[in-house]
Amino acid sequence: MESSAERDGDTDRDDGVGTRERIIRAASRLMQRQGYDGTGIKQIAQEAGAALASVYHFFPGGKKELAVAAIQRGEEEFADELRVAFDQEEDPAEAIVLCTRRLAEGLRASDWVDGCPVTSTALGSASRADDIQRAAASAFAHWRDLVLDRLLRAGVDADAAHDLAHTVISTLEGAELAAQVSRDATPLHAAGRHLAQLIRLAQGTPARS
Amino acid sequence: MESSAERDGDTDRDDGVGTRERIIRAASRLMQRQGYDGTGIKQIAQEAGAALASVYHFFPGGKKELAVAAIQRGEEEFADELRVAFDQEEDPAEAIVLCTRRLAEGLRASDWVDGCPVTSTALGSASRADDIQRAAASAFAHWRDLVLDRLLRAGVDADAAHDLAHTVISTLEGAELAAQVSRDATPLHAAGRHLAQLIRLAQGTPARS
Repeated sequence: MESSAERDGDTDRDDGVGTRERIIRAASRLMQRQGYDGTGIKQIAQEAGAALASVYHFFPGGKKELAVAAIQRGEEEFADELRVAFDQEEDPAEAIVLCTRRLAEGLRASDWVDGCPVTSTALGSASRADDIQRAAASAFAHWRDLVLDRLLRAGVDADAAHDLAHTVISTLEGAELAAQVSRDATPLHAAGRHLAQLIRLAQGTPARS
Repeated sequence: MESSAERDGDTDRDDGVGTRERIIRAASRLMQRQGYDGTGIKQIAQEAGAALASVYHFFPGGKKELAVAAIQRGEEEFADELRVAFDQEEDPAEAIVLCTRRLAEGLRASDWVDGCPVTSTALGSASRADDIQRAAASAFAHWRDLVLDRLLRAGVDADAAHDLAHTVISTLEGAELAAQVSRDATPLHAAGRHLAQLIRLAQGTPARS
């Protein structure tokens, strides 16, 4: 938590870690809502309560470097959500259903504005920047690995688990997007049921409809 | 097809329909690659070979109105792809597999740049513009209806078909995005196999793995 003095005005905190963290947080939130192209570096500085010079001090690569940091932050946040769900639900099918429910709650709480921060940052002109594209690809790969690991531990055959990890992440991503665009959680709830069905099939346990 | 004379310079064709169509095509292609925020109305005019005044003549609502037209164009294009796949493959599961293959071919052919035009246009700051959000929601709903209709004709129970139509579109969307971001068609191929499995399950025919 920041004190109100820390948030006031454009003066930086003298604690370097704090300023850098505030800049990443601001870049991540702004690019999540406005995309890479819709977000300016001045706005990031303003939102972070940091001087523009500080932003360039911590991120000499400017907006592209900030986008990479924002994507890495988004990667960590969703990786944490996945880990929490897998910790709370031993059954991977139930854990994924829980995940879709949390994504729906998050979207609704933000009035359908805060979708996937990685996607919104990596699309548009950012998709042609190699560093940004690589950061986004590595976020997807990291999430897939977490799902893969859980599926393997639940006894799913390696080839099937690899394939299914792809579809779990793709479907969560697409359903979040569909829910955001439609301002309606139905796509996420349907995705949860179908992913659970696919996971149970892959485990060789009877599919519940 | 346009003659080279029609593409030359900034002069508009005197045929109003032709100019409007070129403007929509340019807006759609540019927003697909650069997003709403990364695309300027001057660039659209230039790409369309039209005067800026013509763009405002046909689209007095400016960039927002152009984004709605671009989304509607993207909606029609993917609706056509779905219809063609359903015409070519009687079995809805096979038709969806065909669809994922075509999406993978399209992405690869564009060097992983041309993803879903609706998503790239509707994200970012555009997501807070009601007209744009409604156009994107209606594109998703239209695609879902095409899938729903095909599932119902294939004997899937109404509730299950409704749910499944959501997941088919969400998964196609998410897998296209994952493939684009990873520059690798694996997510689309996995999505095809899993959607086929879910469709066969819903039809009550034995699932092939």
